Amino acid sequence: MTRYKSWVLTDAVNDVWVDSFGVANDTLRLPTPHAWSVHKRTLRGGPRDGVDLVHVSSGALSYAILPTRGMGLWRGDFRGLPLGWQSPVVGPVHPKFVDPDDRGGLGWLHGFDEWLCRCGLASNGPPGKDGDTPLSLHGRVANIPAHHVEVRVSLDPPHEISVVGQVDEAALFFGHLLLTASYTTVPGSNRVVIHDVIENRSTKAAEFELLYHCNMGPPFLEGGARVVAPIREMSPQTPRAAEGIDTFDTYAAPTPNFAEQVYLYELLGDAAGQTLALLYNAVGDKGVCLRFGTRELPCFTVWKCTQTMEEGYVTGLEPATNFPNFKSFERKNGRVRTLPPGGRWEARWSIEVLDSTATVSAALKEVAALQAHARAVVHRSPQARFSPV
Amino acid sequence: MTRYKSWVLTDAVNDVWVDSFGVANDTLRLPTPHAWSVHKRTLRGGPRDGVDLVHVSSGALSYAILPTRGMGLWRGDFRGLPLGWQSPVVGPVHPKFVDPDDRGGLGWLHGFDEWLCRCGLASNGPPGKDGDTPLSLHGRVANIPAHHVEVRVSLDPPHEISVVGQVDEAALFFGHLLLTASYTTVPGSNRVVIHDVIENRSTKAAEFELLYHCNMGPPFLEGGARVVAPIREMSPQTPRAAEGIDTFDTYAAPTPNFAEQVYLYELLGDAAGQTLALLYNAVGDKGVCLRFGTRELPCFTVWKCTQTMEEGYVTGLEPATNFPNFKSFERKNGRVRTLPPGGRWEARWSIEVLDSTATVSAALKEVAALQAHARAVVHRSPQARFSPV
Amino acid sequence: MTRYKSWVLTDAVNDVWVDSFGVANDTLRLPTPHAWSVHKRTLRGGPRDGVDLVHVSSGALSYAILPTRGMGLWRGDFRGLPLGWQSPVVGPVHPKFVDPDDRGGLGWLHGFDEWLCRCGLASNGPPGKDGDTPLSLHGRVANIPAHHVEVRVSLDPPHEISVVGQVDEAALFFGHLLLTASYTTVPGSNRVVIHDVIENRSTKAAEFELLYHCNMGPPFLEGGARVVAPIREMSPQTPRAAEGIDTFDTYAAPTPNFAEQVYLYELLGDAAGQTLALLYNAVGDKGVCLRFGTRELPCFTVWKCTQTMEEGYVTGLEPATNFPNFKSFERKNGRVRTLPPGGRWEARWSIEVLDSTATVSAALKEVAALQAHARAVVHRSPQARFSPV
Repeated sequence: MTRYKSWVLTDAVNDVWVDSFGVANDTLRLPTPHAWSVHKRTLRGGPRDGVDLVHVSSGALSYAILPTRGMGLWRGDFRGLPLGWQSPVVGPVHPKFVDPDDRGGLGWLHGFDEWLCRCGLASNGPPGKDGDTPLSLHGRVANIPAHHVEVRVSLDPPHEISVVGQVDEAALFFGHLLLTASYTTVPGSNRVVIHDVIENRSTKAAEFELLYHCNMGPPFLEGGARVVAPIREMSPQTPRAAEGIDTFDTYAAPTPNFAEQVYLYELLGDAAGQTLALLYNAVGDKGVCLRFGTRELPCFTVWKCTQTMEEGYVTGLEPATNFPNFKSFERKNGRVRTLPPGGRWEARWSIEVLDSTATVSAALKEVAALQAHARAVVHRSPQARFSPV
Repeated sequence: MTRYKSWVLTDAVNDVWVDSFGVANDTLRLPTPHAWSVHKRTLRGGPRDGVDLVHVSSGALSYAILPTRGMGLWRGDFRGLPLGWQSPVVGPVHPKFVDPDDRGGLGWLHGFDEWLCRCGLASNGPPGKDGDTPLSLHGRVANIPAHHVEVRVSLDPPHEISVVGQVDEAALFFGHLLLTASYTTVPGSNRVVIHDVIENRSTKAAEFELLYHCNMGPPFLEGGARVVAPIREMSPQTPRAAEGIDTFDTYAAPTPNFAEQVYLYELLGDAAGQTLALLYNAVGDKGVCLRFGTRELPCFTVWKCTQTMEEGYVTGLEPATNFPNFKSFERKNGRVRTLPPGGRWEARWSIEVLDSTATVSAALKEVAALQAHARAVVHRSPQARFSPV
Repeated sequence: MTRYKSWVLTDAVNDVWVDSFGVANDTLRLPTPHAWSVHKRTLRGGPRDGVDLVHVSSGALSYAILPTRGMGLWRGDFRGLPLGWQSPVVGPVHPKFVDPDDRGGLGWLHGFDEWLCRCGLASNGPPGKDGDTPLSLHGRVANIPAHHVEVRVSLDPPHEISVVGQVDEAALFFGHLLLTASYTTVPGSNRVVIHDVIENRSTKAAEFELLYHCNMGPPFLEGGARVVAPIREMSPQTPRAAEGIDTFDTYAAPTPNFAEQVYLYELLGDAAGQTLALLYNAVGDKGVCLRFGTRELPCFTVWKCTQTMEEGYVTGLEPATNFPNFKSFERKNGRVRTLPPGGRWEARWSIEVLDSTATVSAALKEVAALQAHARAVVHRSPQARFSPV
C-alpha cells in the first residue's frame, strides 16, 4: 500500500473550498532531485473571474487543471515548449459566461480554449434534436464545476503527484453521471496519466459519450508536421475532409480561409488493445504522444483546423468512445455506450511530450510495429459506417 | 410595539453585503433557555460557489435560507430529523449555473434540490409558449438573488427570529413584481412561519402565479406514508395520476421506474378559510404539517415522485394560487391572479414538524374535523376544470 | 509627450485583478484646485454580485464605469444632477444573471439600467435570424467583462484622467472583435470624452455595428423637455412613431401606457463632420449635449420611452454606425460596416452636462448654426431607406 499525503481543495458536500494552496518538494522533502510543485489559486477579473486553477509541475512537465471547467487542462509546458493552442478566446472562461444554447447550440465555443477538454457526458458532437431532446455542441461537462477536488502526493517512489476531481452531470429526471477525473505525473516526468471513471449513479440505464478534445498548436503543429497512428481503417468525415485525403497525415502551415477537416480512425492495438498516436513537428524533434486503449477508447478523431494563428491554428487528437457525429447517428452505429444502474466505465491513458529526435523516432517505431500487423485501410471518401454520407 | 434588533446582510441599493454574520442567544442574552442562532455565510467551490446561506436555528427546528436562490429553503432539521430530500443534484446550485431555457425550457431542474422552492412569479407550471411569450418551467424567481436581506430578533417574548428578503422579478417592458419573503420562528419552536408579499411595483396591471414547492423525503416519506387534508374536491392531473387513484393518499416505497403522479386539490377550510395538510410516516410518529389559508392559496397540489432514492425519492406538498398547469390553461380557468398597479397579494402560512404519535394524531383530528363539514369529492379521472383532459 | 501615471486594475493575460483601488488629487498632489478622484471597488450581493465598478470624479462631473458590463457607464452626477435613469431593474446586473437568448432573444433587457450602454459589436437591433445566425437584442458586448482595465492620470495640464478597458467579442469560428473603450475627463470638467476603437483581430473580414444607447431621465427629461440636433433628414421608425410626428422633438410627462417611439436621424455636421445633439429640460436650464462625428457615427436615433417613472421614464440619444433595425435590413441599406483583417474603426465623442440657461442657449445656437446650412427634411411617415415599412 502506497503511503501518501492528501489535501482536499474542494468538497461541496462538506463545504470545503481552498482559495489558495501550495505544496512542493521543498515542503515535503521527498528524496527526489526534481523541483515539483502543486499550486492552487482562484483567477480573478474578466472572463476568468472565479475560475479555480490547479497548477502541477513535475519539474519538467507542467499543466494547469481547471476544476471549474469540468476538470479540463487549460495549458501545459514541457521544458519551455508550450502545450495547447491560441484560441481567439482569452481563457480560461468561467462557465457563467458560457451559454451552450447560444448561437443555435454552438455557445460552447465561447469557452473553448483548452489544451484538453472533455466532450460529454450524455452526448458530444454537433447540436441538434435527439428525438425531443435538444443537444448542444459537445455536451455539458466542460461547463460544470467539480464539486470535489483533491491533491495526493505519494511518499513512496516514484512519488506520484495526483489531482483528482469529481464532476456531476445530474438533474432530477435527467439521470446522474459522475465523472471522477485524475491527472497523475511523477517528479521529472514528461508524462501525465489521465484516469477517468464515469459512473451511472442512477437506477436507470444511462447512455454516455466521451471524447477527449486534445488540442495542439505550435511548435508541435506547423507546416509539415505529421500525425501518425497505427491505422486499421480511416474515413474522412465529410466531403471537405475528403478533399484533403492525399495529405491527411500532414499539416499545412497557417492558411487563410482554411475550412476544418476531420478524419475518423479505428486504430490497431497490441494484444492488450494498447495503441498510440503521435503528432510531431516538421523536423521531427518535437512531438506529443497519446497512449490509450482501443477497448475503452475505440474511436480516434483527428481535427485539422490549420487556419491562421489569429483565427486559431490548431489540431485536435481525440481519443473517444465515439466519433463526433450527432448522437443519433452514433447510436445507430453502436457507438453510444449504455451504463446499467450503478455501472461504470473507466479509462487510463496518457499524454507524453517528446523533445528530441530520438524520442520522436522511438514513438514512430512503435507506430510502425503496430501497423505491421495489418494494412491500413484509408478511405478516400466518407464511409457510411463512420459518418453520415 | 415590539422592540427588536435587526441586521442588514444585503442591501444592493446601498451596497451593503455581509460575507459572514452570526447572532445567537449567548450574544443577545435573551431570557430563553433555547440555544437559538442565526448564521450567514457564503458557500464557495463547485456548483454552490457564491451562494449566500442564512442558517436559522430555533434550538429545535433549523433551516437554511438561500437568498441567492430567490429566498428558497435549502434544507432543515428538527431534533435530528432531516427536512428536505436527496436530489441527484448536489446543491445548492448558484443561478449562474442554471439556464432555465436549457433542455427546451426544463433547465430549472438543474438547480432543483430545495426543501421549499417558490415557483413564479409571472408564471409557474410546464414550459411552452403563452402567446408570443416563451415560459420556462416554474418561472424565474428561484434563480434570482435577493437584493435585500435582513435579520430581525425581537427583544420581547416570544422573541421572534425573522429573516426577510426581497427579490425583484423585473425588466424594462416586462413589469416589476417585488417579492418580500420572510421566515419566522421562535426559540424552541417546531414551526416556521412564511410570510410573503408580492407587490406590483409597475403602473400596469400584472399577472402572477405562485406555488410553494415544499419537498419531503424520508423519514417522513416512506412506503406506507400518507398525505391527508380536508378535501372539497380532488382530481388527478393526468391519466397517469388516475392510474394511482385508489392509493392517492398513500405512498409507495422507492420504486424503480416510477413515473410521477400529480393530484390537484381544493381544500375545505374553517370559517376564516384556514386549512392544513399533513404528510406523515407509516407508523404515524413523524409528520410535516402545512397550515395555510384557502383564500390566499386556494390550490393545493400533491406531487408523488416515489422513484428510487438515487433518482430522487420525494413528494411535494404545494399550496399555491394556482395549479401547476400551463399558464394559459390556468388563466382560462380563472386561477391566474392579476394585481392592479401598486396592488399586493399576501399570504402567511406555516410548516410544522411533528415527531410524536400524539402530535400527528392531533393534526389528523384537525383534518377530520374540517372534513366533517363536507363529503370529499375524489374524482377518479382528470376533470376539465382542474387540468387539460 | 505627456507624462502620466498609470495603474492596471485588470489584466487577464497576466492575472492581474485589483479588488479595490483609489487615487485622488490629495495622493498625487497635482496643481489643480479640483477634488478629482478615481476609485475602484467590487460590488457584492444580489444581482450585482461580482460587478467591478470604477468611479471617476472630475470634482464636478462623476461617472461609474462598469468593466464587467462591457465598459458601460452605469450612472453619473454633475453637481447634484443625476445622470441616467430609473430602470425597473435594480442594477447594475452581473452578466451571469443575464441570458440574452431569454424571452425569445430579449433577455438583454434583464440587465439594462445603464446611463450609457454599447449595443454591438457584431450586431445590434431587435432579435431574429440573420440567415442561419440567431441574433439577440442589441448584441453581446454589454454582457462581456473587460479583460484589461487601466487608469491613467496625466501629470501635465490639463491633467487628463482616463479609464481604458478592453473587451473581446470572440470565439473560435466566430471571429475576434476587440473593443478598446476609454473615458477621459479633466479636473473640474463637465465633460467626458469617449474614445472607442474596434479592431478586427481576425484574418477574415468582419462586420460590425455599434450603437451608443445613452439614456436620460429626469431632471433633464420631463414634460416639455426637448431634443434638438441639426437635421439633414429624419424618419419615424414605425407607424407608432409617426403618430407622434408633430411633437417628435418634445417630450411628454410620464404617461401611463405610453408605447415607445423611435426617430431615425441623419444629422448635418460642420466641415469636419462634427455635430451635436442636445436634450434639455422645459425651462432650458439643464441639458445634456452629445458631440460626435457624422463620419464615424452617421446615424442618430432618438428613443422616446416616456412611460411612467415606475415603468422606466427614459429617452435614449443614440449616436451609432447604424440604425437599430434588424441587421439584415441595415446591411441591405449599407449601414453595416465591414472591417478587413486587422482593420480598425475609431470614434472620439463626448457627453457634456449643462446646468445653466447660458450654456443651454449656447448649445442651441450651435445647433441653429449648423441647421442654417440646410433645411431639415422631416418625414411624417416611415421611409424605406430608414426602416422596414
